[in-house]
Amino acid sequence: MAAGAGAPEEVRLIDQHCHSVLTAELDDTELAALLTESDRPPAPGTTAFDSALGLAVRRWCPPALGLPAHAPAADYLARRRELGAPEAARRLLAAAGLDTCLLDTGLTAAAGRPLLTPERFGVLAGARVREVVRLETIAESLAVGAAAWPSAVREAVGAAVEAGAVGVKSVLAYRYGLDIPGERPGRLQVLAAAGARLGAGGGRLTDPVLLRHLLGVALEVCAETRRPLQLHTGFGDPDLTLHRADPSLLTDFIRVAEPSGVPLVLLHGYPYHRQAGWLAQVFPHVYADLGLTASYAGPQVSAVLGELLESAPFGKVMFSTDGYGLPELHLVGAAQFRHGLGALLAAWRRDGACSAAEAARLTRLIATDNARRVYGL
Amino acid sequence: MAAGAGAPEEVRLIDQHCHSVLTAELDDTELAALLTESDRPPAPGTTAFDSALGLAVRRWCPPALGLPAHAPAADYLARRRELGAPEAARRLLAAAGLDTCLLDTGLTAAAGRPLLTPERFGVLAGARVREVVRLETIAESLAVGAAAWPSAVREAVGAAVEAGAVGVKSVLAYRYGLDIPGERPGRLQVLAAAGARLGAGGGRLTDPVLLRHLLGVALEVCAETRRPLQLHTGFGDPDLTLHRADPSLLTDFIRVAEPSGVPLVLLHGYPYHRQAGWLAQVFPHVYADLGLTASYAGPQVSAVLGELLESAPFGKVMFSTDGYGLPELHLVGAAQFRHGLGALLAAWRRDGACSAAEAARLTRLIATDNARRVYGL
Amino acid sequence: MAAGAGAPEEVRLIDQHCHSVLTAELDDTELAALLTESDRPPAPGTTAFDSALGLAVRRWCPPALGLPAHAPAADYLARRRELGAPEAARRLLAAAGLDTCLLDTGLTAAAGRPLLTPERFGVLAGARVREVVRLETIAESLAVGAAAWPSAVREAVGAAVEAGAVGVKSVLAYRYGLDIPGERPGRLQVLAAAGARLGAGGGRLTDPVLLRHLLGVALEVCAETRRPLQLHTGFGDPDLTLHRADPSLLTDFIRVAEPSGVPLVLLHGYPYHRQAGWLAQVFPHVYADLGLTASYAGPQVSAVLGELLESAPFGKVMFSTDGYGLPELHLVGAAQFRHGLGALLAAWRRDGACSAAEAARLTRLIATDNARRVYGL
Repeated sequence: MAAGAGAPEEVRLIDQHCHSVLTAELDDTELAALLTESDRPPAPGTTAFDSALGLAVRRWCPPALGLPAHAPAADYLARRRELGAPEAARRLLAAAGLDTCLLDTGLTAAAGRPLLTPERFGVLAGARVREVVRLETIAESLAVGAAAWPSAVREAVGAAVEAGAVGVKSVLAYRYGLDIPGERPGRLQVLAAAGARLGAGGGRLTDPVLLRHLLGVALEVCAETRRPLQLHTGFGDPDLTLHRADPSLLTDFIRVAEPSGVPLVLLHGYPYHRQAGWLAQVFPHVYADLGLTASYAGPQVSAVLGELLESAPFGKVMFSTDGYGLPELHLVGAAQFRHGLGALLAAWRRDGACSAAEAARLTRLIATDNARRVYGL
Repeated sequence: MAAGAGAPEEVRLIDQHCHSVLTAELDDTELAALLTESDRPPAPGTTAFDSALGLAVRRWCPPALGLPAHAPAADYLARRRELGAPEAARRLLAAAGLDTCLLDTGLTAAAGRPLLTPERFGVLAGARVREVVRLETIAESLAVGAAAWPSAVREAVGAAVEAGAVGVKSVLAYRYGLDIPGERPGRLQVLAAAGARLGAGGGRLTDPVLLRHLLGVALEVCAETRRPLQLHTGFGDPDLTLHRADPSLLTDFIRVAEPSGVPLVLLHGYPYHRQAGWLAQVFPHVYADLGLTASYAGPQVSAVLGELLESAPFGKVMFSTDGYGLPELHLVGAAQFRHGLGALLAAWRRDGACSAAEAARLTRLIATDNARRVYGL
Repeated sequence: MAAGAGAPEEVRLIDQHCHSVLTAELDDTELAALLTESDRPPAPGTTAFDSALGLAVRRWCPPALGLPAHAPAADYLARRRELGAPEAARRLLAAAGLDTCLLDTGLTAAAGRPLLTPERFGVLAGARVREVVRLETIAESLAVGAAAWPSAVREAVGAAVEAGAVGVKSVLAYRYGLDIPGERPGRLQVLAAAGARLGAGGGRLTDPVLLRHLLGVALEVCAETRRPLQLHTGFGDPDLTLHRADPSLLTDFIRVAEPSGVPLVLLHGYPYHRQAGWLAQVFPHVYADLGLTASYAGPQVSAVLGELLESAPFGKVMFSTDGYGLPELHLVGAAQFRHGLGALLAAWRRDGACSAAEAARLTRLIATDNARRVYGL
C-alpha cells in the first residue's frame, strides 16, 4: 500500500523488547502452548491456533518455510518438523528483517528447555543483540541476609548494567500490580520486609515494599548510567490481574521519577494502550511500546495501532515483537507491525489526514529512530 | 459479503442468553422504553429511537413486517399495531432464525406485564427453548429463617437445576459489583448476614456476604451437575455502577473457581469486552459473550466484535441476543450478529488476514458450536 | 461524502465548550507548547507537531492562511508570522464556522499572556459568545474567613450565574479526582476544611470536602437558575491522574444530582468516552461531549466519534472544540468534527445502517440542536 522510501516493508527494525528462542524440536502441543498468554492446557475442544494470533501465525509464517499463506496448521507443523527446528528458526528470524534486538534475558527457558544464548540468537537472526536485564530476576538470585539485601541489590543491578545492558526491565505488574505509592519505602521498612521474605524461604519476590525498593534502585542506576527503564503494563499471562496492570496506576511513580530524567518505557499496555499513549504525551520521560499487542491483535492490528497513535506522540512510540520461545513470534511481530502500520497510514493518506512524507517519517521514527535515540544505539 | 457454506446469514443460531417477550399491545412510550438500558423517562426532547440501537431496530425490523428498512418509527409502530402484537412477534422472532434459545427466567415481566412462558415463547420463535435459572431470584424467593437459609439456598438452586436448567446466572454486578473477594465467606458470617437481612425485612439481596455465598453455592451445584455459570458483566441498567462491572474485577473469583472446572460465561462485557476476551484467553474455564453489545452498538457492531476477537480465542466466544420484552430485540440481536460478523470477516479476508475456510469455521464456532459444547446441547 | 442539507460541512456550529485565544505574537516553541496537553518541555528529539493533533493542525490550518494542506510546520509558522497573529486568528476563527461559543472564562491566560476578552473573541470569531463560569476559580478568588466561606461561595456562584453565564463548570477531575462520595459534606466538616485551607494560606482548592461542597452549591444554583453543570472528565494535562478521571467514578454524584434535574455535561471523556456515553444513555440528566477528543484524535476522529455514538443517544451528544489559546484549535476542532462525523455517517450509510435523512438529523442534533435545547440558547 504505502510505497516509496520509508514504507514499513522496507525498513530493518529495531526490536526494543524481545526474548530468545528455542531450537529444540517441540511437539504440537508444546508449540501451541507458546501461542497464547495462558499457561494452562487449552479448554476442551479448543486450540490456540483458533485466535487472532493464530491467524497471524498462519498468515506470515508458512511463506517463510515455503508453504502458501494460511496453509493448515497441521501442514505447517509437518513442514517445520521436516526442516528441523534450527533451520525453521533461521528462516523465520531472517524473514523478520530485524536490525537490532534488545533481549530481555530475565527468562532463560521456554517449554521447559533453555533458550538460545543472546549470541546464538543474534547469529540466527542476523541481528545485532543488546541485553536488557530484569530487575526482579537479579534480586531473586541474591543469596545474602536481610541487612545486606538493600546494598546487595544496588550493587547487583549496577553490575548487571555495567556488564553491558542497554536497559533495565521491571515486571512489577506480575509480581504485585502497578497500584503502588510512587515514593521509595524507608530503609527500616525495606529491612523488615527483606527479613520477612528470607524467613519465609526467599523465592519469588512479591512484597510491594521490596518491589518499590527495587524500582527506586533501578531509577538510581538508570539515572547514573543513562539507561531507560522498561515496565510491563497491560495484558500478560494469568499471573497478573488485568485491571491492576493499567499503566495509569503508575502515575505517582512516574511523577516521582520525572526529575531523574530516566526514560520510562511502558511495554504492551493493551487494553490500556490509550492510557499509555496519554502518559507518553504529557510526561516527557514516558514512552510507549505496542509489543505483544500488535501480534496478538492479529487481523485487528491497524485498529489497535491507530488507537495508540491517537494520544501517543509519534516521537514516543517504539516497535517491539516481545517474541519469546518461538521464532514465529518474532516474524509475526515484525510482519504485523509492517503490515498494520502500512495499512493504517495508507488509510490516513486516502482520507487526506497525512502526506506521504509524513507517513514515511512517522514509520522511521517508530521502526528505528526513536529506539536509537532513547537507548543510545 | 462473505458467501458460501458457513456464512453468518445461513446459520440458525444458538442464542445462549435471552429472555421471553410480551405479546400485549404496548403504547409507543412503553415500547420505546424497552429500547434503552435506562429505566427512566427519556430526557426532554429526546427519544430512544435516536440511538445506535434505534437505528438497528429501524434497519432490521420493518422488513419483517413488510415495510422498507429505515421506515420512519411512526410508520413502523403503526404497522405493528395493525398486525397486532402477537403476529408482529411471530414474524420478528421467525426472522431471527434462532435454533435454540437459553432463556433466563429470572425476569418474568416487562413494562408491568407478564412475559410469555418459555413454552409459548418457543412456539412463537420456532426454536428449542432451554432454561437458565437466576441465582438471586431463587434466593430471594425463599421464606426461611436465617439458620436454615444456607442449606435452603443450596437445595433450591440444586432443585432448580435438576428441574431442567442448562445453566445458572448471577447478577452480582447489579446487586453489589464484581469487586468481591473470591473466597466463600465463612458459615458464621453468612448466618449473621442472613439474619441481618431478614431483620431488615428480606427483599432484594444486596449484601456482599450473601452474594458471595450464593456464588459459592452456584459453583458447587454447577460442578456437580456439569452446568456453566453465567455472570452479568459490563453495561446494563442504571442500577449498576459501570466501573464496578468490569469483568477483570472478578479475577479472584475466577481463580478460586478454576479447580471446579465450571465454565464461567461472562455476559455482555462492554465497554470492558477486551478485558473479558483476555480472561477467556488465559483461563481455560472462562468464556465470553457479546450479547447486548452487538445490538446496542448498532452501526458500530463490526468494530466492537473485532475488539472482542482481538483477545478472545474463537473457541471461547458465544452468540446471544439478550432480547427482553420486545421481539424486536431478538431479531436485532441475530441480524446484527450475522451482518456484523459477516462484514468483519469480509474485511479480514480482503486484507488477507484470514481464508474463506477459516472465516466459515470461526462463524460456526461462535454461532452454534461453542454453545453446543459448553452447554452440552 | 455525506451531501445535501444537514451535511456536517454546511452547519454553523454551537461550540458548547471553549476558551478564548491569544493574538500576541508567539515564538515557535510557545506555539508548539499549546499543541499538547503536556505543560512540560518536549522530550529531546521530539516536537508536538509529530502527533495526531499536529497532523490535524497541518491539515486544516494552512489553507485558512493561503497555504496548501500539509505544508511543512516551518512554512506554516512563517506564514502566520507574516500575516501577524491578529489577522491569522481572524482567518482561522472565521474558517471554523462557529455560530455560538460557550466560553469557559476560568482560564484568563495562556503562554503567560492574557487571553482576549469574550467580547473581542466574539468579534474576531464572528460568533455569538456566552459565558460559562468555573466553580473552583470563583471559590479561590474569595477573601473571606472560614465561617463565612460556605455562604460566600453560594453567593459568588449565584452572582456569577446571574451576571449572565449560561452554565457552570467544574474541574474536580484536576483538583482531586472524580472518585468522591456523591452526598454533600456536612456543614461542620466544610467549616473545618475551610479553616484548614485558610490556615495553610488558601490558594488552589484541592480539599475533597470543599470540592464536594462546591459541587453541591453548583447543583443548587443551577437548579434554581436552570443552568447545566459541565464537568471535566477524561484526559487533560498532567495535573490529573487519568484513571481517577473516569466519568463512571461520578456515578454516586450523578445519582444524588438526578432529582435536581440539572443537566450534567460530561466534557471530553476520552479514553472513557464509552463510559460517558452509557451514563448519558441511562441517566436522563446526563449529556456527553467529545470536545478535545475529536481534535486530539487527529486521523482517528471517525473511529472515536463512532465509539461515543455506540452508547450515547444522539439527543445527548454535543459538539465542542475546547479550543484554548491558539485559534488553530478552534478551527481544528470544528473541521475535525465536520470531517469526522461526515466520514462516519458516510460509512454508516454505505453499510446500510442509516438513511440519508437520519444522518442529516443526527448531525443537526449534535452540531447545534442539542446544545440549543440544553442551554436554552
